[in-house]
Amino acid sequence: MDKITVGPMPFMSVMPTLLVGVNVKGKPNYMTAAWATVACMAPPMLCVAINKARYTVKGIDENKTFSLNVPSEKMVVETDHCGLVSGSNEDKSGVFRSFYGKLKTAPMPEECPVTIECSLFKSVECGSHLLYIGKIEEIHADTSCLTDGKPDIEKIRPIVYAQHTYFGVGKQVEKAFSAGKKYRK
Amino acid sequence: MDKITVGPMPFMSVMPTLLVGVNVKGKPNYMTAAWATVACMAPPMLCVAINKARYTVKGIDENKTFSLNVPSEKMVVETDHCGLVSGSNEDKSGVFRSFYGKLKTAPMPEECPVTIECSLFKSVECGSHLLYIGKIEEIHADTSCLTDGKPDIEKIRPIVYAQHTYFGVGKQVEKAFSAGKKYRK
Repeated sequence: MDKITVGPMPFMSVMPTLLVGVNVKGKPNYMTAAWATVACMAPPMLCVAINKARYTVKGIDENKTFSLNVPSEKMVVETDHCGLVSGSNEDKSGVFRSFYGKLKTAPMPEECPVTIECSLFKSVECGSHLLYIGKIEEIHADTSCLTDGKPDIEKIRPIVYAQHTYFGVGKQVEKAFSAGKKYRK
Repeated sequence: MDKITVGPMPFMSVMPTLLVGVNVKGKPNYMTAAWATVACMAPPMLCVAINKARYTVKGIDENKTFSLNVPSEKMVVETDHCGLVSGSNEDKSGVFRSFYGKLKTAPMPEECPVTIECSLFKSVECGSHLLYIGKIEEIHADTSCLTDGKPDIEKIRPIVYAQHTYFGVGKQVEKAFSAGKKYRK
């Protein structure tokens, strides 16, 4: 296989498409984000990288809480809108119907099938971005997106983000913790 | 929409399927991981959450380097194998053909279309897991997976991970930083 170096750049193969929810001066604001993942199993934590210049930073500073929300495919226009427009220029509080959970200051869109409220555990200064690590305090889900009481990807229809494009989830390739049993040296 | 709470758990809608490469006592080891994302744009950084009990932790401690590697769909059996078997019980150095880049101590599988070498920037103790933040030192790519000099998802065919299952990438839904222009209040 011919290999070449393409230089350091912020590359990741596939990413989730999410909305970060914060309150700024008591008003909900939502920002589109893809640089997020699970940070810990016990206690359950998530992390999300946010540019220091973003309006969302004000909200996390103010309340030490934020939400990570999973929009479904059909919400792609509203979701992308929240990445095109800054809360410092335009009020985005009306893009979704907001609700609050146990934290009271982490707004979540009712329209999102799964929403996660987090309390700030730590923020790490990385350079252009702050990596916010949040403890998951509660997860809210539409009853219509559950199978056996758990969020079901086929019902959620989350959006995959890669190379400036939103994709659906494709066909099942294999079951994890199972396919590897076929491995022979 | 009827909402219920499903309790705190380490949930993320979709994740990348990756192989974390480290040297332990001079020998390559690969671990399957999905809890990873971009941590910073400038300088480019990645982060990955790894259970403290993992053999991979020894390698990062030893060298302060690691690689994050993108397997393609056709590598799903070998990839899952690296999540089923621990390097403390079984030598995984022969699962892939390893090569090294500028860091010399972060092994990368030749078989992966895209491989990323990182130097450790910071590790954050979260609980069961350590969140490793790495500075991207170089990205290596198969020439066959590039379009206009950039890694192309249609040629890479990365694996999406969600609810214990490996998926392909689905159909394009919309272009990012564009679809949102259709938004009307």
